[in-house]
Amino acid sequence: MAPSAVQVSQDDVARLPLKLDGKNGTKHAEDVQMMESQDKTQFVLGCYRVLIADLCQQFNMGHPGSAMGMAAIGIALWKYVMKYSPSNPDWVNRDRFVLSNGHACLFQYSFLHLVGYQNMTFEQLVSYHSDRWDSYCPGHPEIEHPGIEVTTGPLGQGLANAVGLAMASKHIGAQYNKPGCEVINNMTWCTIGDACLQEGVGMEAIQLAGHWRLNNLCVIFDNNNITCDGSADIAMSDDTNTKMRACGWDVLEVEDGNSDVASIVKALVAARANKEKPTFINIKTTIGVSSKKANTAGVHGAPLGKEDIEYIKKANGMDVNKHLDIPQEVYDFFREAVPRGKELEKDYAHVTAKYNKEHADLAAEFTKRMKGELVGDFTQCIPSKDSQPSKAEPSRKSAGNVGVALAENIPNVMIGTADLSPSVNLSSKKKVDFQSPNVKVSSGPNGDYTGRYIHWGIREHAMASVSNGLAAFQKGAILPVTSSFFMFYIYAAPGVRMGALQSLQVIHIATHDSIGTGEDGPTHQPIELATLYRAMPNFLYIRPCDAEEVAGAWTAAVSAKDTPSMISVARQDVTQYPGHSDRNGVLKGAYVFMEEQDADVTLIGVGAEMKFAVGTAKLLKEKHGIKARVVSFPSWRLFEQQPIEYKRKVLQYRSKAPRVVIEAYSVNGWERYADAGYSMHSFGHSLPRNDIYPRFNFDDEKIAAKIAPLVDEAKQYGMENFRGEFRDLNMDYTRDVFHSPQGTIHAPS
Amino acid sequence: MAPSAVQVSQDDVARLPLKLDGKNGTKHAEDVQMMESQDKTQFVLGCYRVLIADLCQQFNMGHPGSAMGMAAIGIALWKYVMKYSPSNPDWVNRDRFVLSNGHACLFQYSFLHLVGYQNMTFEQLVSYHSDRWDSYCPGHPEIEHPGIEVTTGPLGQGLANAVGLAMASKHIGAQYNKPGCEVINNMTWCTIGDACLQEGVGMEAIQLAGHWRLNNLCVIFDNNNITCDGSADIAMSDDTNTKMRACGWDVLEVEDGNSDVASIVKALVAARANKEKPTFINIKTTIGVSSKKANTAGVHGAPLGKEDIEYIKKANGMDVNKHLDIPQEVYDFFREAVPRGKELEKDYAHVTAKYNKEHADLAAEFTKRMKGELVGDFTQCIPSKDSQPSKAEPSRKSAGNVGVALAENIPNVMIGTADLSPSVNLSSKKKVDFQSPNVKVSSGPNGDYTGRYIHWGIREHAMASVSNGLAAFQKGAILPVTSSFFMFYIYAAPGVRMGALQSLQVIHIATHDSIGTGEDGPTHQPIELATLYRAMPNFLYIRPCDAEEVAGAWTAAVSAKDTPSMISVARQDVTQYPGHSDRNGVLKGAYVFMEEQDADVTLIGVGAEMKFAVGTAKLLKEKHGIKARVVSFPSWRLFEQQPIEYKRKVLQYRSKAPRVVIEAYSVNGWERYADAGYSMHSFGHSLPRNDIYPRFNFDDEKIAAKIAPLVDEAKQYGMENFRGEFRDLNMDYTRDVFHSPQGTIHAPS
Repeated sequence: MAPSAVQVSQDDVARLPLKLDGKNGTKHAEDVQMMESQDKTQFVLGCYRVLIADLCQQFNMGHPGSAMGMAAIGIALWKYVMKYSPSNPDWVNRDRFVLSNGHACLFQYSFLHLVGYQNMTFEQLVSYHSDRWDSYCPGHPEIEHPGIEVTTGPLGQGLANAVGLAMASKHIGAQYNKPGCEVINNMTWCTIGDACLQEGVGMEAIQLAGHWRLNNLCVIFDNNNITCDGSADIAMSDDTNTKMRACGWDVLEVEDGNSDVASIVKALVAARANKEKPTFINIKTTIGVSSKKANTAGVHGAPLGKEDIEYIKKANGMDVNKHLDIPQEVYDFFREAVPRGKELEKDYAHVTAKYNKEHADLAAEFTKRMKGELVGDFTQCIPSKDSQPSKAEPSRKSAGNVGVALAENIPNVMIGTADLSPSVNLSSKKKVDFQSPNVKVSSGPNGDYTGRYIHWGIREHAMASVSNGLAAFQKGAILPVTSSFFMFYIYAAPGVRMGALQSLQVIHIATHDSIGTGEDGPTHQPIELATLYRAMPNFLYIRPCDAEEVAGAWTAAVSAKDTPSMISVARQDVTQYPGHSDRNGVLKGAYVFMEEQDADVTLIGVGAEMKFAVGTAKLLKEKHGIKARVVSFPSWRLFEQQPIEYKRKVLQYRSKAPRVVIEAYSVNGWERYADAGYSMHSFGHSLPRNDIYPRFNFDDEKIAAKIAPLVDEAKQYGMENFRGEFRDLNMDYTRDVFHSPQGTIHAPS
Repeated sequence: MAPSAVQVSQDDVARLPLKLDGKNGTKHAEDVQMMESQDKTQFVLGCYRVLIADLCQQFNMGHPGSAMGMAAIGIALWKYVMKYSPSNPDWVNRDRFVLSNGHACLFQYSFLHLVGYQNMTFEQLVSYHSDRWDSYCPGHPEIEHPGIEVTTGPLGQGLANAVGLAMASKHIGAQYNKPGCEVINNMTWCTIGDACLQEGVGMEAIQLAGHWRLNNLCVIFDNNNITCDGSADIAMSDDTNTKMRACGWDVLEVEDGNSDVASIVKALVAARANKEKPTFINIKTTIGVSSKKANTAGVHGAPLGKEDIEYIKKANGMDVNKHLDIPQEVYDFFREAVPRGKELEKDYAHVTAKYNKEHADLAAEFTKRMKGELVGDFTQCIPSKDSQPSKAEPSRKSAGNVGVALAENIPNVMIGTADLSPSVNLSSKKKVDFQSPNVKVSSGPNGDYTGRYIHWGIREHAMASVSNGLAAFQKGAILPVTSSFFMFYIYAAPGVRMGALQSLQVIHIATHDSIGTGEDGPTHQPIELATLYRAMPNFLYIRPCDAEEVAGAWTAAVSAKDTPSMISVARQDVTQYPGHSDRNGVLKGAYVFMEEQDADVTLIGVGAEMKFAVGTAKLLKEKHGIKARVVSFPSWRLFEQQPIEYKRKVLQYRSKAPRVVIEAYSVNGWERYADAGYSMHSFGHSLPRNDIYPRFNFDDEKIAAKIAPLVDEAKQYGMENFRGEFRDLNMDYTRDVFHSPQGTIHAPS
């Protein structure tokens, strides 16, 4: 065995849970050499690197460098250490692997093929960067495909997902494992490049994993000191190992990550044996190793070129005319993974059989959850129509009541907040915090891993991205609910998007929406953010107007198994509208709130601004003799799913009455449903919650005064006059981009 | 003097640049005691804390805890250490102060009042949380107001802004200072709470400041171990000091931050004297100190209540019936800041007089920049219409050509990228990197502080937020240009928004827009993000279609002095349209691209998808006998500023021809300008750039086939048929949220 630079004691190795015979998926570190000769390992490494180079060359595109540099890491993981079953990629207690440096996807695809994942055929492997729509080898790993746990690519987030996967394992293990019956005890392995240590979300996730002492998590740092711009030290001078230790991680180092498989195995084995902390393995590698351009940014995101590939093949004693060639010896080297995986599954079946027998009730619940089903009836957590409040209350409170009931009664639900427990109303006295049992909290009470209330700290992005990992562990087993002020979901947006892309159900409770948030000022008052979430594919943004609509919003969100949701609620009191507001109306996206025969105008009310629609309708009648009907419109996406007949009934497109939306947000997108908008065209202002609306002209009198002439115009000239000329009725605060008379800027010609 | 726990050597103090006589704005640390008795200091501290408590009590709102806890820090800063002039808040070489824990704004407001900022009258001070529209004391500090450098509140970002302010000072100093004539050599001071160490953007900024060795930056950690959810250790177990050192900072500690002013002064003085690194001062404080509820989350965001305030007043020997009372002794304690500030300005005037005389040319340039003017004629950097390419080229290349010319010729421009130099085309051989001259880069060449090319690392959020600090240093002196893939401006969005809110000119070059990005897949293909930037107040989002439009986009962006911009360009080749595309058209937001008399339909083309509008128009004529005109529409915001007559001319609202927008994004918002949309309703897919468009039906044939029946319908039934029923013409990839038949979800009733 090559001399090992890894700092792992024999004790670490001695306390391995793993047997020499490989039954549990790996071997003792000291036996690595006995299994395979150094020569054979180096031969396989060479073949693997050439394969990667060829795969990028075929369509003259791709990221070869990191995949080549990580070859030895891959052998250590897939041949020696990871527990998985190629013939059953979904085996529930498998180790999870996350490629947070997702551009290196060929690394993962190639190993999946070599170890025998059935769907990852050679034809699939060579479809990387081809025009195959149904390729299992897209430009970044995607959750839909066998052997891929989460979709990665946006850097830093894969690491956060891995923290979520490790949390999930820890949490479900704590809930269901019994002595002798560990139904969930898998490891989570995550490879990262420099980016994951630079991106903020990576640092947020690292802090959380350290705090929670997730000893079932191992992060493997592909330390090649190269990023797109050159050497990583062009933008980073951290002492990474010290920083990781300061964040509560154990750190191991491997000096020669290019070829010293045995040392990497030792380190990985020590990580699995770590009883206290997550493990960070800092492995020195060479990007594009064995290429002429090795150790340069040139091999990061571009193919090596034919000449260079010939050079590599020659150096490895290979036939330069063979392309995409995988010798049988290489398959032989890896394919023992298939029977080993079946053995692992068999062993696991013994465990679950025993568990089913000895802990029948728990086993039934566990099985239900692993099937992705909710335990308990969530509809019981939603207040009946009769029990809704009649008095005004903040809609954040209404949303919180349901959230707390879900958290108390449905074991799948893990609920948390980015340090806004006093504001988001989702905590209850019965809650148990998700914490390491070894961590004592000054302000108490302490928590443990069975806890389902998560203090995310002030880390909105990690909250969303780690939640995606929780949701991805076993789809439906955990239903994560996050919360923060709506405005700060702009920090979380990259993670929220990745949840939508992956069809992962996470429910985001966004409180303090709209300018009604008040005195915290424009930094805390969302104006434009709703447009993002309303436009996001496969995302359900709902803005309910009162407690009854909140009931509908939760129903929709919990029912949308493949779609993340956001329920946007207000800090301030909102009026209740019994007899008008309707949970089933919410499920249709929009519905008639107050009907009026032969109405002159339809007012569209939304969320906390519903009061202006209702108030203005009343005033229009009393003061202007105008008949207004009111539509409540909490969700575009749900409305779009309704049949055209329903849409026409609600919005009366063909009537002679204009439709006016009233919402204290940017109006963009409402033009689809309305002819005019009473909206915001500037950022907000720091004013108390009762003063802010009127100062931006949100006031029944002012609104009515703008709508009355619109109605007159429609009567006089017909609706054709409105076609395509959406009317902005509240433009007082709009600012010209150039602060100069229109048209004075001219480009040089 | 109280025994000091601060770890600062007499050497640190000895190498102070400051004189005993206070002329340079402070005193030697050892003289603190001589200046004011310990008794008087403690009296002032008591009065200050009571003032904060009273200010929150008056409207029963606000954040008293941190402001009270930081009282001693404030005395150290404003009375002893910071260089500023209350009678001239805009003095150019003042020390910058950033309250990154912006909720503690009363801390800053109160000191600004006490030291004599003229506009911060007592009447203004007591307007905190009142209904005054023109209050200088909003819920978080705002850049518009005297004495406030940047708007803070969204946590972590203030720290990033402070890094930008320190960079700006370092950079401008390096460009203009001469021996004996240091025209810019100010410090930047930044207070933070736990949140700034948890939020990812804070960690990104910390890494950058350490890497760049910004020794003119001092971060003061208000270490009270309390956040909204309880004790900070509920979600954080980092060894903060070690982590900061690992990130390249020097760390000082103060044990008793509640009252040991002298030790705090010593630490601050040592920070200013630090020649090597940024300084992190970890100061132990007690949130809400002297209140009964001190050291609990209860004093974070809520007033103390009358009883508690009485208790505090009694304990301090004050009259419980006096409210908002500031004894004359307290004013006397602070107001020496006014004459001292005038002295500082006078000294500075001597420096600049000498500078103007000895370095006249440099002085002229310096003066111009300090007035916020560009040096040089930016229009010369924009290729003339005649010199535009006729062949297809990637619009990222066209945008890069202008960016490089600006960077090379306009000294105000600092250009950079979040580690995508090879992709964003903004670097040139002449570039000098912004780096510490003491940092050697493995891949070279090394840079120095005069450098204007910034390697941000993989840190999009910090890139945007630090750039806001660069822009805020002296408005217009630095014009920061950032760059990344458009998709990753979702990471940067919180910072981009804060730039718009603060009217700070930063230009964001977003490359790889749309699904045309290709094989990197849906994680890298923006679909919904443009809606956010189009809806953002005071933000200029421009999506040009070719090199000529890129010229217009840059012109608009550089001209918009009070508005940040984003120029969204494509990775792939885009066709050039000489004779059609027009830079001056871009400045109007939209314009007629290809006119057609009595057209049957108007096609709206945008950015990289312009080719489909042009191609479809041709095909409609040839194959369907339909006359189509084409409008180019790069910017909603610029179009909205045009007179109604112009808008009507371009969009022909009143014609009988439908208007169809063609863009591979979510269509939301286009409904204002179009009757139908050919757009995306799902995330993208990993396919090569030439294959992806047709797979999502972006193909002239397919588009024409959808538009032809629309035109027939318009002719047959008239445009009334379209009113309010926007037609989505490319719905094949839409997915139902519930994956179930419509209407099957019902809420429990």
